[in-house]
Amino acid sequence: MNTSWSDINCPWCYIGKARFERALAGFAHRGEVEVVHRSFELDPRSPHQARPVVPLIAAKYGIGLEQAEAAEQRIADNARAEGLAYVRAGRDAANSFDMHRMLHFAAEHGRQAALLDLLYRANFAEEASAFAPGRLVELAVEAGLDGERAARVLADREAYAEAVREDEATASAMGATGVPFFVFDRRLGVSGAQPAETFTAALEQAWESRTVLTLVGGDGAGENGGEAGNGGEGCGPEGCAVPRR
Amino acid sequence: MNTSWSDINCPWCYIGKARFERALAGFAHRGEVEVVHRSFELDPRSPHQARPVVPLIAAKYGIGLEQAEAAEQRIADNARAEGLAYVRAGRDAANSFDMHRMLHFAAEHGRQAALLDLLYRANFAEEASAFAPGRLVELAVEAGLDGERAARVLADREAYAEAVREDEATASAMGATGVPFFVFDRRLGVSGAQPAETFTAALEQAWESRTVLTLVGGDGAGENGGEAGNGGEGCGPEGCAVPRR
Repeated sequence: MNTSWSDINCPWCYIGKARFERALAGFAHRGEVEVVHRSFELDPRSPHQARPVVPLIAAKYGIGLEQAEAAEQRIADNARAEGLAYVRAGRDAANSFDMHRMLHFAAEHGRQAALLDLLYRANFAEEASAFAPGRLVELAVEAGLDGERAARVLADREAYAEAVREDEATASAMGATGVPFFVFDRRLGVSGAQPAETFTAALEQAWESRTVLTLVGGDGAGENGGEAGNGGEGCGPEGCAVPRR
Repeated sequence: MNTSWSDINCPWCYIGKARFERALAGFAHRGEVEVVHRSFELDPRSPHQARPVVPLIAAKYGIGLEQAEAAEQRIADNARAEGLAYVRAGRDAANSFDMHRMLHFAAEHGRQAALLDLLYRANFAEEASAFAPGRLVELAVEAGLDGERAARVLADREAYAEAVREDEATASAMGATGVPFFVFDRRLGVSGAQPAETFTAALEQAWESRTVLTLVGGDGAGENGGEAGNGGEGCGPEGCAVPRR
């Protein structure tokens, strides 16, 4: 299983995802790799009102607007090198909590992967703001979700909020301070948008050291007719174990 | 992390959960053990109309009603030995899919553990049927959930259905054919309502062999200012890595 934490506001997540997927596409056992998306807000306190990204970069690094513009363009070059569309200019950023909540709603309906791709596209590949009012519900519908239900999720600030916070707590517990952050089988980590070759190496290493479940207990003392086996009483399709007298 | 699969129709799940919890209560690192409930229907094709359990046992094992009654009483004795209330007679069973869907709804609101206990109590410790119309929503409210939303979940047959099926697919992939089925850190399995001592052994073994995340890649080639570290470009609270020219 590959679990990856990312934020919609993170261009390296957009790029890293493409690199990981390229590695996965070339991996022999790709059919047996479960891919799970987890939420991570880079800045939980950022305002909901969208702001242009270039001035934000300038302010964060204490550099001029031209340098910030150049930094954004170099990220765009990296994206395009990966075959990803990237806006020429004018990308904005805002609080992504609602997007993460919606991704959890989408997960329940098997539409998370579709919505995540649409959110990245809306944020990095389209001129219009991904944070414009109504846009998130539109994207949810485009991902195959029911629009009315998506609107209700958006309106209820607590809907799926706990799921987002749990994802973030898990990432913190694993030592992640930034994204993208990939974990293979809870044992191998890849931090950042590493080259596809690194993801390939991680996939191979995880596969080679994959563990088979070891059963604990079960000394054969149980002589039940249930399906659980291993000596413990349990219930199976044919009924429950009848305990010894 | 401990993940356990169970069904509300499974008395050994009710008993096994108590045994596991007794082991956990005496475990030194209990504060660091995450407990996750997963769904498993023993009989996905069983009717929604509740039926008395004793005739079902008799039919499944091809035994007389008296013998079936004795089997149910022996399970009740095991439950009481664990300090659990258990109805004297008249327990029924029905399709548990809606209960599992509601448990996933409850999980989103941090109320899953509460609802699971209430469902077991309603099914095994109370004279009234846990499957009576309206009972599931009542229990959801008792667990702290919003009654109107719970009723909507119940009415929408597809709400959380995928989540239930995913749990079952994961259990099957791990080789579970019956419940309760416990997995510690995806590596150690305990099948059936084993004695508390077995759960203690599994907790200790999982703790001793717990793995720390190993980072793959990161040869230090990246000289970015991001937070991701490990050589990969990423974004952190202070901004995103600016790629090398």
